[in-house]
Amino acid sequence: MPSLLDELSAEMLPAVEQEMHAAFEEGFPAQFGLMHSMLVYHMGWQDIPEGNATKGKRIRPLIVLLSAMAVGGDWRLALPAAAAVEFLHNFSLIHDDIEDKGDFRHGRLALWKKEGVAQAINAGDALFTVAFLTLQRLADPLSAQTVREAYQVLGKACLNLTGGQSLDLDFEVAKDIGVADYCTMIEGKTGALMSAAAELGALVGGGGTEKQSALAQFGRYLGLAFQVQDDLLGIWGEATAIGKSTESDLVAGKKSLPVIYALEQNEEFKRRWNSGPIHAEEVGKIVADLDQIGAKDYTQQQTDMFTHKALDYILYLPSDNKAVLALKSLAESLTRRRA
Amino acid sequence: MPSLLDELSAEMLPAVEQEMHAAFEEGFPAQFGLMHSMLVYHMGWQDIPEGNATKGKRIRPLIVLLSAMAVGGDWRLALPAAAAVEFLHNFSLIHDDIEDKGDFRHGRLALWKKEGVAQAINAGDALFTVAFLTLQRLADPLSAQTVREAYQVLGKACLNLTGGQSLDLDFEVAKDIGVADYCTMIEGKTGALMSAAAELGALVGGGGTEKQSALAQFGRYLGLAFQVQDDLLGIWGEATAIGKSTESDLVAGKKSLPVIYALEQNEEFKRRWNSGPIHAEEVGKIVADLDQIGAKDYTQQQTDMFTHKALDYILYLPSDNKAVLALKSLAESLTRRRA
Repeated sequence: MPSLLDELSAEMLPAVEQEMHAAFEEGFPAQFGLMHSMLVYHMGWQDIPEGNATKGKRIRPLIVLLSAMAVGGDWRLALPAAAAVEFLHNFSLIHDDIEDKGDFRHGRLALWKKEGVAQAINAGDALFTVAFLTLQRLADPLSAQTVREAYQVLGKACLNLTGGQSLDLDFEVAKDIGVADYCTMIEGKTGALMSAAAELGALVGGGGTEKQSALAQFGRYLGLAFQVQDDLLGIWGEATAIGKSTESDLVAGKKSLPVIYALEQNEEFKRRWNSGPIHAEEVGKIVADLDQIGAKDYTQQQTDMFTHKALDYILYLPSDNKAVLALKSLAESLTRRRA
Repeated sequence: MPSLLDELSAEMLPAVEQEMHAAFEEGFPAQFGLMHSMLVYHMGWQDIPEGNATKGKRIRPLIVLLSAMAVGGDWRLALPAAAAVEFLHNFSLIHDDIEDKGDFRHGRLALWKKEGVAQAINAGDALFTVAFLTLQRLADPLSAQTVREAYQVLGKACLNLTGGQSLDLDFEVAKDIGVADYCTMIEGKTGALMSAAAELGALVGGGGTEKQSALAQFGRYLGLAFQVQDDLLGIWGEATAIGKSTESDLVAGKKSLPVIYALEQNEEFKRRWNSGPIHAEEVGKIVADLDQIGAKDYTQQQTDMFTHKALDYILYLPSDNKAVLALKSLAESLTRRRA
């Protein structure tokens, strides 16, 4: 029997896809065919044999719709907000891949590897714009005031998203990054958009100020838990399932949470880390060291802690509401995933 | 005696600067100090001896405010729209400089030359966001519906702006670009934001649909005239005043309007152009050839034609309105400038 989350996803995600297509095509100027085709490629809408593997998981729009339903609203009215959030996430992927020199995305060449840096920067800007234009589709009976507020929520999330990315880029070269700095960074880079997703759902669902704030916090902590779990999987995950070597975060020199924790806790690890890049053949030993220092346990505890904080914020929502139950399952599945 | 345009500019531009500062600082998250300082640098707000030379001319916000006043509105209510348009223009400069490999901007190092490509892409994204957030400052007695429409006008302009830039990047490598392709490109790249500036002014000034459309067309043609004049100055302008050699557009291989016209009109020019880069020492001869082909005259005629079309759209506005007269002066001064 499919779970409640599976059941709702199966209903909602095709509607999201349909809304994204409609919003994307609506008013896209015909003379800009080149830019159009670049964005179609990035979005995974081209007819490519791999099928769904070429798209993202569409977690954020699902959070928007479940949040709208969780506060008693009609999730269909929230579809434009869900599409906007997913476009915004995808814009950030285009630019992040350039900034972080990521060659692949969803199993295909990243847009900048395919079309060059200049066109990819610009295509990202276009998708950013599409995200904001999509909010115009929020329709009756929603008021213009709700739309105005939706723009504010999405705008603030973007500012935090770019701020977090700026810190992340800086951390690559900065010395002595601590756990506190790391948390500030991921609050922006991952927390902000997940928070906005849940908040937009609550706003459009007519949940009122209090539920809106609570869901914003739910999304925020869910984002933090998700990111910390991502860091854990970057060292201890099942390599094939995430399409890259388990060792890559260490070899790439990424200052993820386990590394930052170990740098704070252990002088010997710090000496090794600061002495130069970690080679693939060393990874087994370094992972054993990290285990011994307690970095894996610490990271797992942080994921659990953030997940619990997230769930605390939706505790009081009615447990006979299917979407509330689905949000809880989603939180658990995201933070217990193995890939 | 200062002209009416000078008089209004002297009153409006300091108010724009104040609004931009206030909008920029409002809610800028304190933890993102690095990103903040990059944007302050780009905006020319740092305490640099050159003073005003380090900022742009702020033409677009002036168009917003004059348009608001020209339809009988209170220009002060339009300040957030003026600031938003200028932020958006500045975002596009940050990204254009990366995409076009422009090393300098307003007499200083371009942001990407100073901070690297990754941070500069991201800082541009942040400024894009600031532009959209600034529209939230449109205040009473403006309705939420007006704000919603302002988001739509700005969003559509952005889509055209990025579409135009995509074509411009493509034209660098494409063969057989004609005058018609060129016009499609500059409609997006330069026309769209000028059009949005005038339209936003008319919207916020309460001019009604008809005047809003008329001013959108005024801004559009003004933008086209401005860009074509820019192309003319890129070959025949006073080099020192624009901070680069008069020859640079030819040496840079830029497919500006005079070149595209000459490519269409003259086989010999086309053979020379297609045979490889133009060297600095050849420029005198090539300019003489362009003169002889009639490329300069044609370009000047196009500027005049676009300027007249622009002015036609504001003909019926009351000529006892100071802002209407100032818009006319602005159109004439922009398209008769020598630098």
